[in-house]
Amino acid sequence: MANPEILELLSTNKVFDGELRKYKFKACLNANFNLFLPSHSAAAHVPLLVYLAGLTCTEDNGAQKGGFFGPAAAKGIALLFPDTSPRGAGVEGEDKDWDFGVGAGFYLNATNPAFAKHYNMLTHVTLELPQVLSTAGLPIVCGHGALTLYLASKTNQYRSVSAFSPICNPINCPWGQKAFKGYLQGGTTEAAEQYDATELIKKRTDPVRILIDYGTADNFYKQGQLLPENFVKAAREAGHDESQVQVRSQDGYDHSYFFISTFATDHINFHAEFLL
Amino acid sequence: MANPEILELLSTNKVFDGELRKYKFKACLNANFNLFLPSHSAAAHVPLLVYLAGLTCTEDNGAQKGGFFGPAAAKGIALLFPDTSPRGAGVEGEDKDWDFGVGAGFYLNATNPAFAKHYNMLTHVTLELPQVLSTAGLPIVCGHGALTLYLASKTNQYRSVSAFSPICNPINCPWGQKAFKGYLQGGTTEAAEQYDATELIKKRTDPVRILIDYGTADNFYKQGQLLPENFVKAAREAGHDESQVQVRSQDGYDHSYFFISTFATDHINFHAEFLL
Repeated sequence: MANPEILELLSTNKVFDGELRKYKFKACLNANFNLFLPSHSAAAHVPLLVYLAGLTCTEDNGAQKGGFFGPAAAKGIALLFPDTSPRGAGVEGEDKDWDFGVGAGFYLNATNPAFAKHYNMLTHVTLELPQVLSTAGLPIVCGHGALTLYLASKTNQYRSVSAFSPICNPINCPWGQKAFKGYLQGGTTEAAEQYDATELIKKRTDPVRILIDYGTADNFYKQGQLLPENFVKAAREAGHDESQVQVRSQDGYDHSYFFISTFATDHINFHAEFLL
Repeated sequence: MANPEILELLSTNKVFDGELRKYKFKACLNANFNLFLPSHSAAAHVPLLVYLAGLTCTEDNGAQKGGFFGPAAAKGIALLFPDTSPRGAGVEGEDKDWDFGVGAGFYLNATNPAFAKHYNMLTHVTLELPQVLSTAGLPIVCGHGALTLYLASKTNQYRSVSAFSPICNPINCPWGQKAFKGYLQGGTTEAAEQYDATELIKKRTDPVRILIDYGTADNFYKQGQLLPENFVKAAREAGHDESQVQVRSQDGYDHSYFFISTFATDHINFHAEFLL
């Protein structure tokens, strides 16, 4: 954990009787992450919940504004907050848009040669970080990348998944189409195999554990970027009922961290059922 | 409340079933504020708790990172988050330092002619905002300015006060000495009358309701900027025991919002006793 050639400890803060540690990850991918360690846990190995933030975010947004530490401390669950993209990769045009490139890695491994060297957030989140952390595993993930990481996993690496306002069907929305065209040689066709939650749930026939919340006042929802209805329809057709796939429409809430913090405790408690 | 000549509504967010409204206050003092309104309250008039943020902050820090909405919603308490200083006053040198001028108004009325026109946060917080809000009063205040506003009030405007890591004895610390020298013609001598919590508690003989938390890993505490021991000593000598003035040393916590969010529920519950 403390190998100084791989990790540099940037700061520590005590919070809810546990410790928040911010690290710089010194791999070819230059990215920071935050790690919350509870002061105690009911489990023999402390379970780890991974919070994958959305577009524009860094490792700090969820940690500072999400309201997750209180309920995680109460349950004895550790939290990992990776960054959303590499920083300083120097790819031409990577910081031109807020919804592509820096701050918008989409948790995929790029196949477009311009991005393929550095933009490998899938490997970073599912292999590099778990290896470095050497903990009891990486049982949970949240966010858009989260749904796909959970649904595409062949190894049962994740026990459950939850997401706030995720992009449920990215091959059919502007954000996803733009990202896949930019990152992947095969565009949305390549993405449908591995990076689209609605496509992936169609192929899952074993039981799944999924909780999704979105707000009806979310402008991105209203613009058709999230498409949760498509995901629900595909899940039900694949035989996953409400007990396996719960998608909640929250009246009047928007896309902000005010929304996330309101339901943070619900999500921690949902995962705790499968982790403890 | 909605007089468009005085207030401009900048944004609204639903949070914990209540509403967060951000306003621009169009007075000679140009400052924004956030207002949280719970969806319901046990009291006939919704009680209002004022959160006065510290050095460098705006109206957003406490609202985004403080973790106050959940416990305030549960108790049915409204929250007001004013800014910490006027913005854009254009006083020469006002944005030179982080601990004086912009972002550091110290909740006082400046008497130094250079600042006296705009830097009147005492009037803003205790008179202008309550008048504009037209609610049931302003029962509570938090923060350094908070302690002094509570202790100096002649009208029992505030029923209780709590503070995180406050500057308890500013006439005897570098931050306070710098601020008072800059804002007040009479410097620390003028400040001792009205703006120093340790000096003010000596003169209060009636019962008070004060809760203070600070962290032992707070670098500003270690540097002697906060001086809570001076405040406790003065309070005890003035006859205020633990039931009236509770100052808690929290082991290992620092000066960040991670500390504040950890004890946010404690503070809301403390005030709820006197508000509901």
